[in-house]
Amino acid sequence: MNHYTYEELPEGHEESFCVDVTDDKMECFYRITQDENPLHRDAAFAKRMGYDTRVAYGMLTASLLSTLAGVYLPGERSLIHMVETEFPRPVYVGDRLTVTGRVQEKNDRFRTMILKVVIRNQNGEKVCRGKMRVGFLEEKDSRQL
Amino acid sequence: MNHYTYEELPEGHEESFCVDVTDDKMECFYRITQDENPLHRDAAFAKRMGYDTRVAYGMLTASLLSTLAGVYLPGERSLIHMVETEFPRPVYVGDRLTVTGRVQEKNDRFRTMILKVVIRNQNGEKVCRGKMRVGFLEEKDSRQL
Repeated sequence: MNHYTYEELPEGHEESFCVDVTDDKMECFYRITQDENPLHRDAAFAKRMGYDTRVAYGMLTASLLSTLAGVYLPGERSLIHMVETEFPRPVYVGDRLTVTGRVQEKNDRFRTMILKVVIRNQNGEKVCRGKMRVGFLEEKDSRQL
Repeated sequence: MNHYTYEELPEGHEESFCVDVTDDKMECFYRITQDENPLHRDAAFAKRMGYDTRVAYGMLTASLLSTLAGVYLPGERSLIHMVETEFPRPVYVGDRLTVTGRVQEKNDRFRTMILKVVIRNQNGEKVCRGKMRVGFLEEKDSRQL
């Protein structure tokens, strides 16, 4: 896990990691959400709708933004304020996703940063693009009240 | 599960459901994301940062928007295009969340709708607000190409 402070992250700084989309992750997401939508659970239904097979939950892909902020950018002191995501292409079980985040803009007054996020599959196709506003946790006693 | 078509959902239509935030869901989210951030895993760390105890992952709360679209609004034919979420207050394990979505705006040309989403805890406090753009799946053979 990274331990970046606000000062240690310049605009342009980038971090990446890879994740495999597995049946186990699909099942975990179902246990959290009870989202029984057949697009994600029934390959025959998904095919009738024009997909190769059942489609991974978009919000499962989006959940990787939690890892991006909480482990990489900035890591330990991450506090997510806002997340925006779009899903230009479907993700399937078996896909290997590469999540990349870049510090797009810093706000010195509020000590927050805007991360620009892109997630690509193993073919280099963009399956998710997003933006996050992330702040930095401070120990309670050291806060300026 | 609901089976609303585009025509069946007027602007203003609202759906709600309740979800308990449990240790099991936190563990499932960790299995998906490997987000080992101590704010969500270590009560002592979270307390030093000014929280009551470890904080639920924001993106776990946001994952309930998958259920909102995929099961309720519109249900079966849901296709999520875009999601925006903000997290004005922390969520803790043991909280009971009420997710409410409302059809804010319809776009007849693209047959999409904007849902306005609010998630409140058992005390009526807003813990997440969001916006989604959701389309409607159509059987492949019935598409107008």
